[in-house]
Amino acid sequence: DDLDNGRPLQDQIEDPFMDDPVRDSRLIPLTQKPCNAETPGQELAESFLTPNEVFYVRNHMWVPVVEKTEAEDYTITVELPDGNVKIYSIKDLKTRFKQRTITAVLQCSGNRRSDMSRFAKKTNGLQWSVGAISCAKWEGVRLRDVLADAGLSLEEPGEDAQHVQFSGLEAYGASIPIAPVLDPMGDVLLAFKMNDAPLPRDHGFPVRVIVPGHVAARCVKWVNKIVVSDEESNTTWQRRDYKCFGPNEVKQDWDKYKAIQVMPITSAITRTRLKPLEKAHGESTSVSTTESSVVQIEGYAYSGGGREIQRVDISFDGGETWDQAQLVDDTKLERGSKAWCWKRWRYETGLSEVAKGSKDGSKATIVVKATDDAYNTQPETHKSIYNPRGNLATAWHR
Amino acid sequence: DDLDNGRPLQDQIEDPFMDDPVRDSRLIPLTQKPCNAETPGQELAESFLTPNEVFYVRNHMWVPVVEKTEAEDYTITVELPDGNVKIYSIKDLKTRFKQRTITAVLQCSGNRRSDMSRFAKKTNGLQWSVGAISCAKWEGVRLRDVLADAGLSLEEPGEDAQHVQFSGLEAYGASIPIAPVLDPMGDVLLAFKMNDAPLPRDHGFPVRVIVPGHVAARCVKWVNKIVVSDEESNTTWQRRDYKCFGPNEVKQDWDKYKAIQVMPITSAITRTRLKPLEKAHGESTSVSTTESSVVQIEGYAYSGGGREIQRVDISFDGGETWDQAQLVDDTKLERGSKAWCWKRWRYETGLSEVAKGSKDGSKATIVVKATDDAYNTQPETHKSIYNPRGNLATAWHR
Ligand SMILES: [Mo]
Ligand SMILES: [Mo]
Repeated sequence: DDLDNGRPLQDQIEDPFMDDPVRDSRLIPLTQKPCNAETPGQELAESFLTPNEVFYVRNHMWVPVVEKTEAEDYTITVELPDGNVKIYSIKDLKTRFKQRTITAVLQCSGNRRSDMSRFAKKTNGLQWSVGAISCAKWEGVRLRDVLADAGLSLEEPGEDAQHVQFSGLEAYGASIPIAPVLDPMGDVLLAFKMNDAPLPRDHGFPVRVIVPGHVAARCVKWVNKIVVSDEESNTTWQRRDYKCFGPNEVKQDWDKYKAIQVMPITSAITRTRLKPLEKAHGESTSVSTTESSVVQIEGYAYSGGGREIQRVDISFDGGETWDQAQLVDDTKLERGSKAWCWKRWRYETGLSEVAKGSKDGSKATIVVKATDDAYNTQPETHKSIYNPRGNLATAWHR
Repeated sequence: DDLDNGRPLQDQIEDPFMDDPVRDSRLIPLTQKPCNAETPGQELAESFLTPNEVFYVRNHMWVPVVEKTEAEDYTITVELPDGNVKIYSIKDLKTRFKQRTITAVLQCSGNRRSDMSRFAKKTNGLQWSVGAISCAKWEGVRLRDVLADAGLSLEEPGEDAQHVQFSGLEAYGASIPIAPVLDPMGDVLLAFKMNDAPLPRDHGFPVRVIVPGHVAARCVKWVNKIVVSDEESNTTWQRRDYKCFGPNEVKQDWDKYKAIQVMPITSAITRTRLKPLEKAHGESTSVSTTESSVVQIEGYAYSGGGREIQRVDISFDGGETWDQAQLVDDTKLERGSKAWCWKRWRYETGLSEVAKGSKDGSKATIVVKATDDAYNTQPETHKSIYNPRGNLATAWHR
């Protein structure tokens, strides 16, 4: 077992977290050991690509130490169903395969969990607000190219090739079905770079898996082993935690449902602010937040599986009447083969319009919901999708 | 233009529908010319595969006449972006390519439209109940194999290969994005057989396109031309009718949204009946529908895009409390690469239990909703997804 890559096993050190990196002070910490910290709504609203420093962090354990000088020699072991094993160094991957760039959102299955606790019932798990999601540009090689090189037939992989299991250096593990790997438009990557920089340590340096459109829990960081198998990964993170139950199912029969993989559609408000009236050209104006002010509401919408967001509906009366938010026309990037990104959206209206929707004149209920290109949409209430772990809290955002 | 295949053009005949086949009397007719007829709930409940005679019929025009004796020589013209054209007869397709069998649901985008009219507001279009959906076994060849033979690179099809357009013999046309064709697990077929018989005339004899997981409107019948293009099909059925708008968008700006392709998740009750108490073995019992009777509720749940149904939740108090229906374990068939089929479900409970959920003791509100393996679920109300054409009426079924 080479989990330690030649170093002392982390869990034999008194505090395995002692080598964890320092985090940006803008991140909102939920736990320190392991580090779980979300991106503030303000930062999500600011840019299409989330800067690496404020990209949300969701670690299950400590951050393994891989020295920069050793990174090129870091290896990934690939095992096929016939037992054949091949070992690739980062240098091999970088020199022998075509480099690909895609832009993709990563999202925790617990994003917006605190909404479910608030609107339905107490849930167990990290009480994320709307910031357990971020978007980055990823660069690396396609997993399908590597598996083909290792000897897997992409057209007829055989009955034993059902799942691809990933193990990380710190002992985390998870798997995905083989379908997105076989799909030439699936864009599953072994990524070395994030937003044009080497992967930060918190995000998997020197290499992590990116499975666009899937829950981030399958995008294993510090990956050092890949096994094509007829079985899912045997870890708790694969076989238990990341599943959803019916609103009445308090006793969780973990074998009953499939592991969360492709993410359902969701949306959220990230920033609401008063926007001063535009100055007429050359005119000097004193700005005040009167009833003639404009309210600017911003947010994101995202659907897994490469589905593109079609529409974001917004309501100021709790869902009685609707209008459409403006989808932000973000700069063209190397997007990849499908719609792996979020759509950010904006809506501007007069402060008096917002207040009108409020029944007692005091506080308006702003509600947003999104629709993707399979015309799937969000459930209206968290109550109808309640599950004890608070996974996939995707109801209309209020 | 060989639309007429050597026969007089159908629209030059006084009644182009005069050669339409006779339909099974169990089908529920909505219109005669063209024939639109739905499958009764009773028949949907009876079997996993819908028998050909009662498979719902959704025709946009008349049924073209292709004689059985001419079927093997019937041709499909395939055109690639580089202008290359190849012509395949049915005989070519049957002899030169590997035959594939998949089982897949077809569903009209207007299925359950009458629910939207009833619970939200008047909609335009055929007022289908729950029977504009059926499931069959399809046999034919993969479109990707044919396109590869015609000269298309499946790995690098090029920038001009964005859509695949289909034209039918009667003038109908539609297109799909190229993604499911490139995907080795996409299972897009040119099908000759339906439930082990040659395609019935109403369902496209001698050959139709099957795009599993997509709306049936793209599964062009009597297909005689296939064009790989950078553009969608130019027809009304592609560019206009089959789109959804926001609940407030009365004026339909057809360029604003994408054509319906992959279907969102839906479910429906197909049959509710009193089930007499089981006789104890050997005992002769007189059966009556007393309060000790068992109510059996049956239905289907289906999600497009190859998503598998995970769970069907059922409520007897309008959605306050829930239980899970039993998913019917249907006989194993050649399913294909993804979950293209529906799941049928059953729920049995005491008549008194059903009545308990009713607030005034008179009529219980039975509600069902389904969840797929991307954990997408159905919207609660038709009001929130209302669109003037009544497309994709997928709200919780009552
Ligand atoms: Mo997560
Ligand atoms: Mo349709």
